[in-house]
Amino acid sequence: MKITLIGLGLIGASIAKALKGKARITGIDQDASTVGRALTDGVISHGGAELSLASGSDMVIVAVPVGSIVETIGRAIPYLDDGTVVTDTGSTKAHIVRSIDEIWPSFIGSHPIAGKENPGYASSQADLFSSAMTIITPSPATRAGCIENVRRMWEWCGSLTCIMDPQLHDELMAVISHMPHLLSFVSMSMAGSVQIHRELLGAGFRDFTRIAASDPVMWRDIFLENAGNILPLIDQYREELKKLRDLIEQGRGQELEDTLTAYARIRRGLYGDSR
Amino acid sequence: MKITLIGLGLIGASIAKALKGKARITGIDQDASTVGRALTDGVISHGGAELSLASGSDMVIVAVPVGSIVETIGRAIPYLDDGTVVTDTGSTKAHIVRSIDEIWPSFIGSHPIAGKENPGYASSQADLFSSAMTIITPSPATRAGCIENVRRMWEWCGSLTCIMDPQLHDELMAVISHMPHLLSFVSMSMAGSVQIHRELLGAGFRDFTRIAASDPVMWRDIFLENAGNILPLIDQYREELKKLRDLIEQGRGQELEDTLTAYARIRRGLYGDSR
Repeated sequence: MKITLIGLGLIGASIAKALKGKARITGIDQDASTVGRALTDGVISHGGAELSLASGSDMVIVAVPVGSIVETIGRAIPYLDDGTVVTDTGSTKAHIVRSIDEIWPSFIGSHPIAGKENPGYASSQADLFSSAMTIITPSPATRAGCIENVRRMWEWCGSLTCIMDPQLHDELMAVISHMPHLLSFVSMSMAGSVQIHRELLGAGFRDFTRIAASDPVMWRDIFLENAGNILPLIDQYREELKKLRDLIEQGRGQELEDTLTAYARIRRGLYGDSR
Repeated sequence: MKITLIGLGLIGASIAKALKGKARITGIDQDASTVGRALTDGVISHGGAELSLASGSDMVIVAVPVGSIVETIGRAIPYLDDGTVVTDTGSTKAHIVRSIDEIWPSFIGSHPIAGKENPGYASSQADLFSSAMTIITPSPATRAGCIENVRRMWEWCGSLTCIMDPQLHDELMAVISHMPHLLSFVSMSMAGSVQIHRELLGAGFRDFTRIAASDPVMWRDIFLENAGNILPLIDQYREELKKLRDLIEQGRGQELEDTLTAYARIRRGLYGDSR
């Protein structure tokens, strides 16, 4: 079985490492030194920069930034056999699935809920998906059999899988991933002057701002692709912030306490007493 | 040496546990069962609900919610000897220091940068302050000798100490603690519907929202006490959020990437590649 990874960054190279021994892995990446390192490490058996290397693949996994997925698959299609199953690893799904459905019948979207702040091949690891969840997003246009093939591949990587509608996926991710990242990024607008007091930073600040160190290009693409779901949430968040602001300014202690209590209860409802 | 703790919650009881064997500890708390448990555990040698128990103390440490500190010290003063050193453990300092300076010459503010989401005696632990930093906030009115006494007490608890102006303390804490807590609390306004998809929550969401489970009464008091520093930061944050929103809506990819890159650089500047 031949599987081709397009993109040997954190996600792509981690998949290649996880699949080692289960398939012949070809790696395609524009960065020649990354391909060279993956070959030397034995992570891939063939590699290079040319999309033609994907020909003859049973499965092609596209692990490039969200904003490049549609275009990359479009350029790879001329080299694919009719039955080649194609999937991606992008953090948004609706627009990608809609676009590829029009040009390739054996496509199904994937989103592994796994990652690290540090991008790139150097950060990849075979167990990145171990016990993580991968959301698989078929559409009515998805050819029969694709789901099982892609699900099996993720299970080989150690991932759990679930099936979800692409649009619902994007709505949900806007809340549980995209907005937290955006809000954490923006919190850095206040922190430029903190540098001289680094020794005073507590665990709360560290955890709250951890995701602000995420890859800017990856998140630019995600915010743009999922703007339809993110923009209303930003407006809603700004409104809520305004309400809390006014309670503080007007010294309305009981209402402030009630609001904070409701928020804390939601968090505790999600995780119980474990943090 | 007699040290009296007023308030046997997470902070007060952790101090009592840390000071065990270094002083005779009296504990005052309105909750009789907490006092009983602390006596049974040997965490305090005397205890009860009456502030008169503080008489004869060399030092009194007030570990009650920020909003009750000034009033509690005011009620305790009639029982104190002239030389009794008084300190508190509140997360805001300017207003407290200003108020107590007028009524007690041997007061100096403290703020241990330590805590946990779960409040109360049951969560207290002797090593809570181990290697943490405690900020000590003298004012021009502080009587000589108080600084050294209070510093030594915190060092007995295992804490590092530093000296800072009370007003500067509040400005800095608004940025590195109060705003992150407020923003994390407010993010819960979006998360009520996430309950049914708990298995999809990743590490980013977990870390970003951890402090939203903090004690609502404690944080109500902090937000109200430090409103002067927090309100302008909320306005600034809402403005920054609006700018990012507009970049996303208008599809201005390069500016969006530049902004995110600047934010990520600030975070990486604070912590390097460790998270």
